[in-house]
Amino acid sequence: MPTRATKFTLRDNQIPTAWFNVVPSMPNPPSPPLHPGTKQPIGPADLAPLFPMALIEQEVSTAEWIDIPGKVLDVYRMYRPTPLVRAKRLEKALKTPARIYYKYEGGSPAGSHKPNTAIAQAYYNKAEKTKRLSTETGAGQWGSALAMSAAFFGLECKVYMVKASYHQKPGRRVMMETWGAKVVASPSTDTEAGRMILADSPDSPGSLGIAISEAVEDAATREDTKYSLGSVLNHVLLHQTVIGLEAKLQMEKAKDFPDVVIGCVGGGSNFSGLAFPFVPDVTKGGKQIKFVAAEPTACPTLTEGKFEYDFGDTAELTPLVEMYTLGHRFVPPPIHAGGLRYHGDAPALCRLVQDGIIEAVAYPQTKVFESAVQFARAEGIIPAPESAHAVRAAIDEALACKETKESKAILFGLSGHGLLDLQAYEQFLSGDLIDA
Amino acid sequence: MPTRATKFTLRDNQIPTAWFNVVPSMPNPPSPPLHPGTKQPIGPADLAPLFPMALIEQEVSTAEWIDIPGKVLDVYRMYRPTPLVRAKRLEKALKTPARIYYKYEGGSPAGSHKPNTAIAQAYYNKAEKTKRLSTETGAGQWGSALAMSAAFFGLECKVYMVKASYHQKPGRRVMMETWGAKVVASPSTDTEAGRMILADSPDSPGSLGIAISEAVEDAATREDTKYSLGSVLNHVLLHQTVIGLEAKLQMEKAKDFPDVVIGCVGGGSNFSGLAFPFVPDVTKGGKQIKFVAAEPTACPTLTEGKFEYDFGDTAELTPLVEMYTLGHRFVPPPIHAGGLRYHGDAPALCRLVQDGIIEAVAYPQTKVFESAVQFARAEGIIPAPESAHAVRAAIDEALACKETKESKAILFGLSGHGLLDLQAYEQFLSGDLIDA
Repeated sequence: MPTRATKFTLRDNQIPTAWFNVVPSMPNPPSPPLHPGTKQPIGPADLAPLFPMALIEQEVSTAEWIDIPGKVLDVYRMYRPTPLVRAKRLEKALKTPARIYYKYEGGSPAGSHKPNTAIAQAYYNKAEKTKRLSTETGAGQWGSALAMSAAFFGLECKVYMVKASYHQKPGRRVMMETWGAKVVASPSTDTEAGRMILADSPDSPGSLGIAISEAVEDAATREDTKYSLGSVLNHVLLHQTVIGLEAKLQMEKAKDFPDVVIGCVGGGSNFSGLAFPFVPDVTKGGKQIKFVAAEPTACPTLTEGKFEYDFGDTAELTPLVEMYTLGHRFVPPPIHAGGLRYHGDAPALCRLVQDGIIEAVAYPQTKVFESAVQFARAEGIIPAPESAHAVRAAIDEALACKETKESKAILFGLSGHGLLDLQAYEQFLSGDLIDA
Repeated sequence: MPTRATKFTLRDNQIPTAWFNVVPSMPNPPSPPLHPGTKQPIGPADLAPLFPMALIEQEVSTAEWIDIPGKVLDVYRMYRPTPLVRAKRLEKALKTPARIYYKYEGGSPAGSHKPNTAIAQAYYNKAEKTKRLSTETGAGQWGSALAMSAAFFGLECKVYMVKASYHQKPGRRVMMETWGAKVVASPSTDTEAGRMILADSPDSPGSLGIAISEAVEDAATREDTKYSLGSVLNHVLLHQTVIGLEAKLQMEKAKDFPDVVIGCVGGGSNFSGLAFPFVPDVTKGGKQIKFVAAEPTACPTLTEGKFEYDFGDTAELTPLVEMYTLGHRFVPPPIHAGGLRYHGDAPALCRLVQDGIIEAVAYPQTKVFESAVQFARAEGIIPAPESAHAVRAAIDEALACKETKESKAILFGLSGHGLLDLQAYEQFLSGDLIDA
C-alpha cells in the first residue's frame, strides 16, 4: 500500500554518494564513437583537447558505480535532495485511479536538472587546471547551469547561444551574465565555423549543431579552455543519475514502485538521469517497467529518426556516434521547447530504445501546453515547455488507467520550471500557439 | 559552536501547526484602525463586506497562537518547510568572521513568500462560501500567489495590476492567467474609482494605492466577492510567521542563534513573518537581537515617514491605520523593487519601530543590485529586487563584523527569486541602472 503522504523528502545525508553507470545493465552496450576523420574508434588522446581526463575516463567506464567527489556533493547540497511529490490534486482533477509521482528538479537556482552535471564538469575541469570553459546553449537552460557552476569554481565561461534564442530569450542570457559568463549569439564572428556560416547565410538564426561547432572549435584552439556539453555523452547521463537514485529511495519511502517511468528527451540526459537507475530492475531484476521517452513531433528523433552513425554537430567536428538521428543538418522548426530541438540523442538511451527496453512517444506542442496548464492549476508549478512533454505523457498514462480501471504508479521527471518561458504560455492561453 | 552543515532542513511534520501572534509580546499594541467616515474605531461589522469572519477575528486577536487548519497545512506541504542555508560561500567571498544564514522562500511555485498567506486567505474564504476574490498587485508577486491559491480552492480571482507593471512585467501577468485569474491594468474602467482617475489622468501609470481602491470597491459592491490583501494587515503578518517559526527551529539545528535578523520591507509581511517569532526573545526573554528592516531610499517609509493615522489607499476607501507613512497620495519613483513601493507599512511593525525594538535602513537600488549579483555568484540564487535589499543589509552587517572582528550570526530573509526581474539585472550589468 502506498503511503498517504504527498511529498517524500530525503535528508541531506541521503544524497547519493556515487553515480550509477547503466552500461553494465544494458543487454547491448553502445557502439564506440568513431573519429570524424579516420572513422576508427576514438581513444582518450582524441578527446584530451576537449575534456579533462577524469571525464574521459567516465565517458568510457564500465564500472557500475562512480564515486561523487566531496566538493561536488557540497554544491549539490545547495539544492539537493530534490522533492518527489505525489500529485494527488492532479489525480483528483483527472479522476484517475493511477498514482502519479513527479520528481522535481526545478528548485535548483538555474531552474532545471542541468546543474547536476554542470557542477561536476566544472569541478573536474578546475581539478585539472582548466581556466576557461566553452559551451553552446539553445534555450539557455544548459548555458545558465554551466555559467553558475563556473562561477562556483572560479572558471571563466563562454557560451555560444543559438541566435534565435539569444534574441527571443533575453532572460536566459541575463542569467548567464549575472553569474559572470560571456555570451555571444551563434553563429558568431568569434570562430572559423561561425564566420563560414555567416559568409554563406548572414541572417542564419543558428542551430544547436552550429553552436556546438563553435564551442568545440573554441576549446580545441585555446590552450586554457575545455569544452563542456550538457547532454548526449555518457558522463553527462552518469551525473544525472542522482535524480533517479534519489527517486528510487523516495519511492521506497512512499512504499510504492513505478509501473511507468516517463521523461522528456532532447539529448537524453534528463530522461536517462531519472530512468537509468531503474533499468537493472528490468534487465536484471525481472521487474516490469514501461519506460516512456517523450519528444516533440517537431523533432521526432526517437520516433522517426534512423538508428545509425552520425555527427553530433553541423560542421562535422565531433566524433560520429551510433544513435537515432534526423541527420546532422536537420534544423527543427522553432518550437518553444528549445531544449528538445536536437537532431540526435544519447547513444546509450538510443541503444535501449533499439533493444525494446524504452518506448518513445511524440507530441505536438499545443497538446503539451494544454497539459502544462492543467498541471499548473492542480499542482502549482508551471512546467518548462520541455518538461511539459513528460507531463503530457503522464496524464495520458493516467487517463488510460481510468479507461482500464488500473491503479498504476506513474513516475515522471519534472525537469524544470517554465518561469523563463511565459511568453509561450501567453501564446497558448491566447489561442495563438500553433503546431509546427 | 555552530554546526558545520550548510543547509538545515526540517521534516514535513515540523512545519508549524500554529501561527504566532506578536501582539501579546509587544511593549505597546498597535492602535485600533479607524472608520474612514466616522473616524471611530471600526468593528467586525465594518469589515464583513470585505473579509470572511475568520480573518476578521484573526485581525483583532490577542491570542498568542492560532491553529493552522489541516487543509492549509496540506497545501503548505507543497513547498514547505523551506530551507535555511548557511551562506558559507558568501562568507568566504566577503572574508568575514560573521556567520550568515538565509531563509529562502523563493522555492514556492509563485517564487516568493506570498503563498503563505494567499493559501490561508483562499481557504478561509472558501470555507465561508466566497465565490470570487478581488485583489491588487504591484510587481505581481502577490497577485500571482493569490491566483495560484484561488485555483487550488476553486475560487475565481480578479487582479487589478498597477498599469506600469502590467506593461513592464508581462511574465507576472501570464503567470496569473496560467493559474486562471482575470487580470486588468489599473486604473481600469471596471470600477468607479478607476474611471474617476482615468477621467482626470487618462495616461495614469497607476499605483498600489489606486489598485487597492479598485479591488476594495470590487469586493464591496459584489455579493459573491471578498477582498484579499497581501501585506500590512495583522492576519497577513500572522500567516507569514511560519517563516520565522521554521527559522527558529532551523537555527537550533544549526546550534546557533541570530544576533541580527534582517528582512526587506514593502508593506511589512515578509519582514514580520521572519522577525516576529524572535520578538519575545527580546521583549520577554532578555536576549539581544538587532532587527533590521531594509527599505528603498526611493520609498523611505520607516526611515523618513511620519508615525500617524493615514489611509491605506489613494481613494480613502480603507480604514485609517496608525503607521509610518509617506502620505497616501505619495507615488514613489519606478524602482525595480515594485513590491517595496507602498506609502505605509504594517501597523504592528511600525509600532515596534516606534518603540525602538526594530531599526530601519534605506538603500538606493544600485547598491542593492551590486549585492544581489555578488550573492548570486556565491550562492547561486538570483534574488528578487525586493529581497536584495535584505541581502545588501546582511552584507553590510557582515562587513562591519570584518572591521570589528566580531563573529556575529546574521539571519536574513531571502523572500523570493528574481527570475521574473532579469530586465533589472540587465540594466545593472550594462551600467544603465540609475538611483531614483
